[in-house]
Amino acid sequence: MAAEPAPISFARGAPSLDIIDVEGLKSAADRAFTDDPAGSFAYGTSVGYLPLRSWIAERHGVAENQVLVTNGSMQADAFLFSTLVGAGDAVIVERPSYDRTLGSLRSLGADLHAVDIEPDGVSVDGVRAVLDSGVTPTLAHLIPNFHNPAGYSLSADKRTQLVALARERGFTIFEDDPYVELRFTGDRLPTMFEQSDGEVVYASSFSKTVCPGIRVGYLVGSTELIGKVAALATSTYISPSMVSQSIVNAFVRGGSYETSIETVKAALAERARVLSEGLRAELPEVEFVDPEGGYFLWLTFPEGTDGDALFDACAQRGLAVVKGSDFLLDDARHHLRLAYSGVTTSQISEGVTRLAEAYRSL
Amino acid sequence: MAAEPAPISFARGAPSLDIIDVEGLKSAADRAFTDDPAGSFAYGTSVGYLPLRSWIAERHGVAENQVLVTNGSMQADAFLFSTLVGAGDAVIVERPSYDRTLGSLRSLGADLHAVDIEPDGVSVDGVRAVLDSGVTPTLAHLIPNFHNPAGYSLSADKRTQLVALARERGFTIFEDDPYVELRFTGDRLPTMFEQSDGEVVYASSFSKTVCPGIRVGYLVGSTELIGKVAALATSTYISPSMVSQSIVNAFVRGGSYETSIETVKAALAERARVLSEGLRAELPEVEFVDPEGGYFLWLTFPEGTDGDALFDACAQRGLAVVKGSDFLLDDARHHLRLAYSGVTTSQISEGVTRLAEAYRSL
Repeated sequence: MAAEPAPISFARGAPSLDIIDVEGLKSAADRAFTDDPAGSFAYGTSVGYLPLRSWIAERHGVAENQVLVTNGSMQADAFLFSTLVGAGDAVIVERPSYDRTLGSLRSLGADLHAVDIEPDGVSVDGVRAVLDSGVTPTLAHLIPNFHNPAGYSLSADKRTQLVALARERGFTIFEDDPYVELRFTGDRLPTMFEQSDGEVVYASSFSKTVCPGIRVGYLVGSTELIGKVAALATSTYISPSMVSQSIVNAFVRGGSYETSIETVKAALAERARVLSEGLRAELPEVEFVDPEGGYFLWLTFPEGTDGDALFDACAQRGLAVVKGSDFLLDDARHHLRLAYSGVTTSQISEGVTRLAEAYRSL
Repeated sequence: MAAEPAPISFARGAPSLDIIDVEGLKSAADRAFTDDPAGSFAYGTSVGYLPLRSWIAERHGVAENQVLVTNGSMQADAFLFSTLVGAGDAVIVERPSYDRTLGSLRSLGADLHAVDIEPDGVSVDGVRAVLDSGVTPTLAHLIPNFHNPAGYSLSADKRTQLVALARERGFTIFEDDPYVELRFTGDRLPTMFEQSDGEVVYASSFSKTVCPGIRVGYLVGSTELIGKVAALATSTYISPSMVSQSIVNAFVRGGSYETSIETVKAALAERARVLSEGLRAELPEVEFVDPEGGYFLWLTFPEGTDGDALFDACAQRGLAVVKGSDFLLDDARHHLRLAYSGVTTSQISEGVTRLAEAYRSL
């Protein structure tokens, strides 16, 4: 009997340990605990560790009371959704979109309206069609950069159009932007938040730039909205982890942040290149857009491909992938999401070979 | 004009920095990040950092899947309440009880039934009277040791009676036990959890034994209940801070825990002694029970004392206290909660003098 192939995972959107700055984190913890033991170890408040909040506010050019730092950006999403979305409220989401976000909104009883994503981001015509059909959404959830799972980014022009639409039709855009720092080709685009006047609430995270296990994310919005979310956060957990946030603060202020981002981007660019080249060579019938940043590449197999059978055929070959149908509001089975963030280039090459074999076995 | 007196706070239930083991925490972080960078920095799961979960399980003599480690025990409470308590559900609480807990339960629409606390803990006859009145509670929330705000502890005999009552009448006891390690006189009593067979879910925290800013608390319960709470936690935040939990794990396994607890207990015992002696000397008309542990002393002023006026008179003298009415379901204005955890013994002596002056000024 042949040995089982070593498992390879294109499934989880998480960085491999080699691109996490372990030494930088050790030294940041030591500085944080030495320089501000009271701030690190005493109770804080629900707005987060104040020096980090101040750093984020400065970076976004907003007042400090427009920022709330949370235990990871999923927690920020949960607070925001609980504050803004009630049962039966209409919410525009992207198709495909991040499965956990869809789950959170569904659990609140939101009435989800999915709009297709194109290679330059969500269809503005699609959003307009939802609005014109008589739906009055509370919120539109959009992932502008290096979308999860689609890998696509929202064009500058569409960003401007969407902010104008939100202003005109009176809904809030939730700009969910955890991957923004991970652009490895092309120019950085203005956020919707910076073009807005209260229509946009913005979230990001240090999961992809410092490390995920530290669980530090944040929201930027109007003073009024952030005040409401802060009240909910106080009653939920008093304060987020001051230890985590003071370490992040020392990390970002001590120069490790820029170095860490460069390391991550260089590795992701190389992994994305090897993945794209491998796919073009071994699976020419499959469509995808070359990622300009982030963790993900979205594969479109020929119409009629059975995604469930393909998933199983991959699993039999020791390859983990995520079915497109996990991210979609309705059934579209000929997509897969590949995450290249947690795998080495040699694993990528071998993984593509297994994927091609799996596809040809159907 | 006389200088303003330096402010003294008997208000916040938090430790002073001098009883937090800053060096122990620095060294724990260094060991955690060196020995297990992957576990500290990668995504974890919602059950918490596995080696810490395992340590807690062993300490409580339960299986690992009966434990869930959270971002502070308030977050554990919030998850548990969301899992067990729906709008209109009857919940037994203590009178007085922790204001944040009462707030969380109220925000879920729980129908609260308050039972008086006596110096040996909640009145079992009072609990029985609620049950006999036809109320069928989902949950009874009880703080067994060094109650917040009452300072009292539940006697061994009452613990046994309450577990039997929960079994007989089919409700769950939530044993909320953050202060358990802080007993400085008397013998440790068995928990209700260890006498139970599924009727009790237990929560505790490292806020009082390691530090509050690290936000690490936990739940212990049946495998089924913990599984449900874990699912809710996953959808809320993926995982708690692995960085915080891996530091706590290194701290508790490296010998710092026992030392830290001894430091904290010695300081609290001394502060409680100075406070009690000062009160007896300067306010003989006020009733209280000498604390056997924990952070709090509960003052009962003569009936008819106006707590609001007393609070204001204290504030005018630079003394912060918490009104008893903040903890009560109905109006009982002749109580104050004093926290001695965050003040030095000389601040305590001066604070008691100000309190006596404030009372005599009414």
